Amino acid sequence: MIKTPYLLFLGDAPDALAAKVAQGVKDWRPEYSIGQYRMDNCHADMGLPDMDFDEAVAAGVKTLVIGVANRGGVISPAWRVVLERALEAGLDIASGLHNLLADEPELVAAAALHGRELHDVRVPSVQYPIANGVRRAGKRCLAVGTDCSVGKMYTALAMEKEMVARDMKATFRATGQTGILITGSGVPLDAVIADFMAGSVEYITPDNEPDHWDLIEGQGSLYHASYSGVTMALIHGGQPDALILCHEPTRKHMRGLPDYQQPSLEELRDTALIMARIVNPDVKVVGISVNTQHLSDAESQAYLAETEKRMGLPAVDPFRNGAGRLVDALANC
Amino acid sequence: MIKTPYLLFLGDAPDALAAKVAQGVKDWRPEYSIGQYRMDNCHADMGLPDMDFDEAVAAGVKTLVIGVANRGGVISPAWRVVLERALEAGLDIASGLHNLLADEPELVAAAALHGRELHDVRVPSVQYPIANGVRRAGKRCLAVGTDCSVGKMYTALAMEKEMVARDMKATFRATGQTGILITGSGVPLDAVIADFMAGSVEYITPDNEPDHWDLIEGQGSLYHASYSGVTMALIHGGQPDALILCHEPTRKHMRGLPDYQQPSLEELRDTALIMARIVNPDVKVVGISVNTQHLSDAESQAYLAETEKRMGLPAVDPFRNGAGRLVDALANC
Repeated sequence: MIKTPYLLFLGDAPDALAAKVAQGVKDWRPEYSIGQYRMDNCHADMGLPDMDFDEAVAAGVKTLVIGVANRGGVISPAWRVVLERALEAGLDIASGLHNLLADEPELVAAAALHGRELHDVRVPSVQYPIANGVRRAGKRCLAVGTDCSVGKMYTALAMEKEMVARDMKATFRATGQTGILITGSGVPLDAVIADFMAGSVEYITPDNEPDHWDLIEGQGSLYHASYSGVTMALIHGGQPDALILCHEPTRKHMRGLPDYQQPSLEELRDTALIMARIVNPDVKVVGISVNTQHLSDAESQAYLAETEKRMGLPAVDPFRNGAGRLVDALANC
Repeated sequence: MIKTPYLLFLGDAPDALAAKVAQGVKDWRPEYSIGQYRMDNCHADMGLPDMDFDEAVAAGVKTLVIGVANRGGVISPAWRVVLERALEAGLDIASGLHNLLADEPELVAAAALHGRELHDVRVPSVQYPIANGVRRAGKRCLAVGTDCSVGKMYTALAMEKEMVARDMKATFRATGQTGILITGSGVPLDAVIADFMAGSVEYITPDNEPDHWDLIEGQGSLYHASYSGVTMALIHGGQPDALILCHEPTRKHMRGLPDYQQPSLEELRDTALIMARIVNPDVKVVGISVNTQHLSDAESQAYLAETEKRMGLPAVDPFRNGAGRLVDALANC
């Protein structure tokens, strides 16, 4: 568990896109996002109060979250000096960078000296069990996609937000780096050892109250040759009661696989149900979430209306339309 | 790659079952199995010449293969002394034990001193790529099971042996510890990091001659909640042209999962085909391999006859009947 609230480190971000992790934290956990820290030459701005580390500590901040991609894949000397100062001031540091904080001797030494923690969320920190497949109390919803990067995390976070606003019991369960930084916990599923994948998903979605929903962050796609095993482990470890189908209708081919086409929503529905029924015979597909960012308003409306009619399920773009209708479907499940 | 041929280390095996890895090597790679090394109190015997390490080196042996499970999950002081002597005599050591040779400082030091290699086949030694899904030349056959431990490795090895005897081009591709020790190479798939599972399978089944068959060792089951992700990665990384369905008809429940029943062969066939067609639209189920060890001869015959008729596919127990009819089916594929 990463301690909250956060100071968001924007570093020397060349543009807003480089700070998309910080944007995700601020969008989905505004209550964790007390301030931002920007170095000279920072071209990103979350609109949060700029704070130095002493101000942040005084404001109750516990952790500096690296909200920006680093240039060149290395933690630069300029960053390192700043991060050491954060540790000295009394902050933990959390990072989803490929190159690990734990591989920087100066930071490891400074953390030890000042009694602070370094969280590399790209690396599992738990010895996960092998999945036992035992049915758990509480309900679980999983977003499955026709492809990678079609809006599965966004969908689950939007549904959680709507459910919390309705006083429903709901918890987003992160399975990727950004999700973990946003919520402070979860499993970096793509970095888990094969035998323990499904067990790690069971671990983060334990028994719960009968009317509590876990919104499990999806990964990969059953139809993506590179990552389908990860998706399979999510379905069998997650024991979903409800599936949301996620789709991006303008893709020319599967992400990173020029020889492969996305399946139809019908194919995804049928295949996901076959696999999910193995662990939960009562599972249902309850809705469709479409990422229509590359369509005009009119095109988006037309696409969603046609999809909804064809599939007999609510079809929305949660970014444009909100997740209300998906939550309605879940509430009836 | 582990250097061959081997001296099989039987240690202080309490019984023959404890030495089943050695038995596998001797059964499937007799040409690698030059001799055996037994300590006092060894109650296993492969019927191979007993050799000390100098005799083995003189006979051309390159590697001492740990063919026995260690008691208590630790490499005992008695073993360690013997293994150090093997390194000193000029042998590499290969092991599939949970506790690693690399974690024994004395063995690491002795290997460095004598210029020998320690192979822990339970740990990946390659930085595998992410799968790219590109179709490869050559043909591939994968055994998929209704459950774990239903004879998938045995089936693939028996088919390879029969194909080699017929002068067909065939290579068993190991994906587990025992298979790697038997053949000297492969991927310990259950220990690979999630993102690289399918890529590791692509890596061990590269482009080949058009009439060459890889016999890929199966793992887990699409229907096994703990390990289905591993099976999924095998199907998508392996791009099988041919599937063999493997089954053990007397199981009361899925291995290790008392709440789960095995699927029917029909269910397995249909589900495996859906998943395999994503990467290879021409894939076919060509035969059925049944482990009938818990049935009498008459029961086995009746079960296989009924299964063959019902499924319209050759159904054999390769241990009892040989793999000839499965290879016939492959030859027509």
